[in-house]
Amino acid sequence: MSVLIRNGHVIYGEDFEIVKADVLIEGNRIAKVAKGINEGADTVIDAKGRVVSPAFVNLHTHSPMGLFRGLADDLPLMDWLQNHIWPREAKLTREYTKVGAYLGALEMIKSGTGTFLDMYFFMDAVAEVVEESGLRGYLSYGMIDLGDPEKTEKELKEALRTMEFIEKLNSDRVQFVFGPHAPYTCSIALLKEVRRLASEHNKLITIHVSETMAEIGQITERYGKSPVVLLDDIGFLGRDVIIAHGVWLDSRDIQILARNGVTVAHNPGSNMKLASGVMPLQKLLNAGVNIGLGTDGAASNNNLDMLDEMKLAALLHKVHNLDPTVADAETVFRMATLNGAKALGINAGAIKEGYLADIAIIDFNQPHLRPVNNVISHLVYSANGNDVETTIVNGEILMLDGEILTLDEEKVIAEAERVSEKLA
Amino acid sequence: MSVLIRNGHVIYGEDFEIVKADVLIEGNRIAKVAKGINEGADTVIDAKGRVVSPAFVNLHTHSPMGLFRGLADDLPLMDWLQNHIWPREAKLTREYTKVGAYLGALEMIKSGTGTFLDMYFFMDAVAEVVEESGLRGYLSYGMIDLGDPEKTEKELKEALRTMEFIEKLNSDRVQFVFGPHAPYTCSIALLKEVRRLASEHNKLITIHVSETMAEIGQITERYGKSPVVLLDDIGFLGRDVIIAHGVWLDSRDIQILARNGVTVAHNPGSNMKLASGVMPLQKLLNAGVNIGLGTDGAASNNNLDMLDEMKLAALLHKVHNLDPTVADAETVFRMATLNGAKALGINAGAIKEGYLADIAIIDFNQPHLRPVNNVISHLVYSANGNDVETTIVNGEILMLDGEILTLDEEKVIAEAERVSEKLA
Ligand SMILES: [Zn+2]
Ligand SMILES: [Zn+2]
Repeated sequence: MSVLIRNGHVIYGEDFEIVKADVLIEGNRIAKVAKGINEGADTVIDAKGRVVSPAFVNLHTHSPMGLFRGLADDLPLMDWLQNHIWPREAKLTREYTKVGAYLGALEMIKSGTGTFLDMYFFMDAVAEVVEESGLRGYLSYGMIDLGDPEKTEKELKEALRTMEFIEKLNSDRVQFVFGPHAPYTCSIALLKEVRRLASEHNKLITIHVSETMAEIGQITERYGKSPVVLLDDIGFLGRDVIIAHGVWLDSRDIQILARNGVTVAHNPGSNMKLASGVMPLQKLLNAGVNIGLGTDGAASNNNLDMLDEMKLAALLHKVHNLDPTVADAETVFRMATLNGAKALGINAGAIKEGYLADIAIIDFNQPHLRPVNNVISHLVYSANGNDVETTIVNGEILMLDGEILTLDEEKVIAEAERVSEKLA
Repeated sequence: MSVLIRNGHVIYGEDFEIVKADVLIEGNRIAKVAKGINEGADTVIDAKGRVVSPAFVNLHTHSPMGLFRGLADDLPLMDWLQNHIWPREAKLTREYTKVGAYLGALEMIKSGTGTFLDMYFFMDAVAEVVEESGLRGYLSYGMIDLGDPEKTEKELKEALRTMEFIEKLNSDRVQFVFGPHAPYTCSIALLKEVRRLASEHNKLITIHVSETMAEIGQITERYGKSPVVLLDDIGFLGRDVIIAHGVWLDSRDIQILARNGVTVAHNPGSNMKLASGVMPLQKLLNAGVNIGLGTDGAASNNNLDMLDEMKLAALLHKVHNLDPTVADAETVFRMATLNGAKALGINAGAIKEGYLADIAIIDFNQPHLRPVNNVISHLVYSANGNDVETTIVNGEILMLDGEILTLDEEKVIAEAERVSEKLA
């Protein structure tokens, strides 16, 4: 299988240089980027007036939560969770969750996301959706034991079952990740065992850390230290750990994250909507911490649109610091692409020979993206997910000119409505 | 001319009640909202799976500035203005400005805006664009005299010339507004004369007030009081005044705005991108001040998308106050519709019998807007401008199923590129 994308504005290489060029995909890799490529290809896409961008890497989400979109907004976090989200999640079945995952997959493909790091329940069902959709999914079963040793065992067992299920799929697009939910919902015993298992099986770990002030208070009361210090003290941290949020980090926490090579998945939309707080972006960048971008679940965002998320990231940190030079467009674009791929250890997030062929083609023939003065700026500040026309992952075309090729969009939407009624 | 919109989810009345109903437009008014309307109509629009929303009111913008989109981002305000925006604005001609206004009109129609309050130069050209586009435009020539009495005369003359030009158009969709730029760029003499003329000619006034800390410092040094107190002291304020920004307001300022019935046009995107600060939304609402929503110009946003802007407004105030209950979806939706219309003194911003027929039809048959759990929430938190399918202003269809009927989109985009090169 080969695909040739002609005549686009290509965001080339790790420095995001804008060049007018053709992009040749062979198999699942980018084979060549050059002007006037003559090689034939199985599929030729005309990208005149389009921007050929690396597909986005959503480094933190709960993909099936689109089912709960808009069900409860503008509420305090605990009211939201306890009275609206958790009661509905208790009714979730494997079947319902799978419908949610289909809806999430559709949203991601439509808005140019190629890879996502997920945490939820029934992750074997989500794995099947990833396999079918063509996306690249890093999937963790969210473990919560609340200090109950029986629950610890059960949660670890479910995680390992999910791991086995995913390994049997034998897909290089679907990977298992360990996902202890958070230091305030997981026992030390669980966290330590996760660390051991992740090293043994050579898997990544993702975990919510330092999301809210309440969490900091709770962990400090329980352990006399911050969540990050706690995780460091038990030897949990490392280059294979991706923490979501990292909102309430002090200087010591930041140094610990930097020293251990931990990645932070930044979720500005969710942090803003739930009023969690503002991640110390500049301090983390200055310390050399790798930062990716995530949407979090659609119940706290309320979409999975990484273009939307880039704008939120860029704007939030400027106003928070009263400094318009922070979170510049290129820095944010890098968070949404290369940094996310780096955290997952994949050669993606850039358009360059040898990289995985994960590409979003964005239609710039629209008034809000003209004049084409600055491609990266337009993507960060002016574009949105609907501007994505074509999404390619692992060399396969998942959406062409707005039409989803791997899933039945109409059917998924109808089923999502049906499930939503059952969960009400 | 009559239009019948069938089978949509209608956001009905001033309380934004969601009803499944048909909407009948006769002439420029909404004639009837009911289930199963049987009357024939010149045009029938099937809105199944769509949301029938009041068109948005953009209460502060500089519509031709799309020409400068993305030319200079992530810069300190004064660097941005002095080294990038002002040198290019100095090269603007009537012709170039008109191309910018066309581009802005396209963007607004495409994203469901029906009415906008504008401030820029060559406003006679902008008036022609408004007339042609079918939008509802409230247009002010931006006056800046920097204390030079000769300039005062010239600016007032240009404003009055613009007023005459617009009045000759004799269109109820194009209205003149007085637009002294700001207290720090206008002399007291100019401001007083504007106040007198606005009362004499029964026109609205719009002005930038308390946008940046630097402005507060400058005005306090010059006059020994805040910009709002200054304007109050010279008798400038009233129900016919719309101030843009109002970021740095103290309690006294807020009381003065409330007492005078002044409207504030809130521009969260611009305030965030330029790192101006955060408007005290809750204090203003508590004081009973009318607040509308604006995008500001596309050079500091970088689009004119009111759906995007609603999300920014809702999210910014939650995180700034560390309180997820502030700026709830309905409050923000009201700012973007009814409150803006109220400030302009027009019977628009709601779908109800007798209101002006300014309507945006939004396609909810998309994964990021499903399940349809909450229409207003989806519009504020999940939708974006591209989701708008049809835009109707004053009973006239300006865009139908994504196709602009009043302007030549391709031609405008090509001209915008051409002008952009000349301004480089
Ligand atoms: Zn999360
Ligand atoms: Zn302005």
